Amino acid sequence: MLLRKSIAIDMDQVLADLLQSELDIFNKRYNKQITKQDLTGKVLEDDYPELANEIYEFMNTYEFFRDLPVIEHSQEVIKELQEHYDIYIATAAMFAPNSMIAKYEWLQEHFPFLHPHHFVFCGDKGAVHADYLIDDSLNQLESFQGQGIMFSAPHNEYENYGVKVTDWLAVRDYFMEKLTTKS
Amino acid sequence: MLLRKSIAIDMDQVLADLLQSELDIFNKRYNKQITKQDLTGKVLEDDYPELANEIYEFMNTYEFFRDLPVIEHSQEVIKELQEHYDIYIATAAMFAPNSMIAKYEWLQEHFPFLHPHHFVFCGDKGAVHADYLIDDSLNQLESFQGQGIMFSAPHNEYENYGVKVTDWLAVRDYFMEKLTTKS
Repeated sequence: MLLRKSIAIDMDQVLADLLQSELDIFNKRYNKQITKQDLTGKVLEDDYPELANEIYEFMNTYEFFRDLPVIEHSQEVIKELQEHYDIYIATAAMFAPNSMIAKYEWLQEHFPFLHPHHFVFCGDKGAVHADYLIDDSLNQLESFQGQGIMFSAPHNEYENYGVKVTDWLAVRDYFMEKLTTKS
Repeated sequence: MLLRKSIAIDMDQVLADLLQSELDIFNKRYNKQITKQDLTGKVLEDDYPELANEIYEFMNTYEFFRDLPVIEHSQEVIKELQEHYDIYIATAAMFAPNSMIAKYEWLQEHFPFLHPHHFVFCGDKGAVHADYLIDDSLNQLESFQGQGIMFSAPHNEYENYGVKVTDWLAVRDYFMEKLTTKS
């Protein structure tokens, strides 16, 4: 029997569409029409550094993180991957401590087939032990000790990384192919 | 220059005296006089299985975890170890999700010299990456991939483990000796 490999999966911008909710609130509050496309290769705070604190304040709440939309195909693909891999959720919740309970409840609502004992709320992902990490953050991927997989997001559009995937169907292909080539 | 090793440290029964608070509430609520010594080699739920749910309910609260006493010498020793090691806090907060905000605040109050980016709130500590783990739970030590150090608690009194320490002064000796023997 082959030993099951483990996959750690980031939440924000990988499972949860944080950017869309961030823009919805920002545009309404400051009467703007910023789109995701406008943020190619950067984050909102790069264009509005004077509002960085206010952006952090409206995001670091239970309400903000509790209602984020689920990123397309993540549920079905993770459910399928779970048959062959140990799945962990690894999210940098310590950057926004008020998000913790919301993230826990959100995972239970949208990914009820995952066990909470496999949730890891951390800061630096160098402290996460898994064979793979799927993440949109280059810093976190570089800190992680295993094989990283960069999940595309507007902010990382111009970043090169060994393994980069555009969506969850590509994640599925990457991992299912590994199973086939092994047997 | 030597690469700094990393130490992950459990909270309950290692940094925070959870058992004392648990007994204080239990004894008051059920009119008992159970002491820590009465729980040598077992946990409260072993003697009162019919109350296990009620015990979990009164413990899985913000208030319970926010006010736990700090275990003797942990602050001074960790501050000293931090000069030579990367310190992470790894706590199984997912077993009591209502504890998360309290644990975060408690660490900031009692260990202000630790960075929240080094807090890891998890379930199974097989997902924690560090060179060492100091923990009172045999299950967690067995799940962890690095070198485990069992921290004595009444419930693990009869458990044998390769490295077992009785208090924080013994933790200090263990790690400071490693530094001396290397140089």
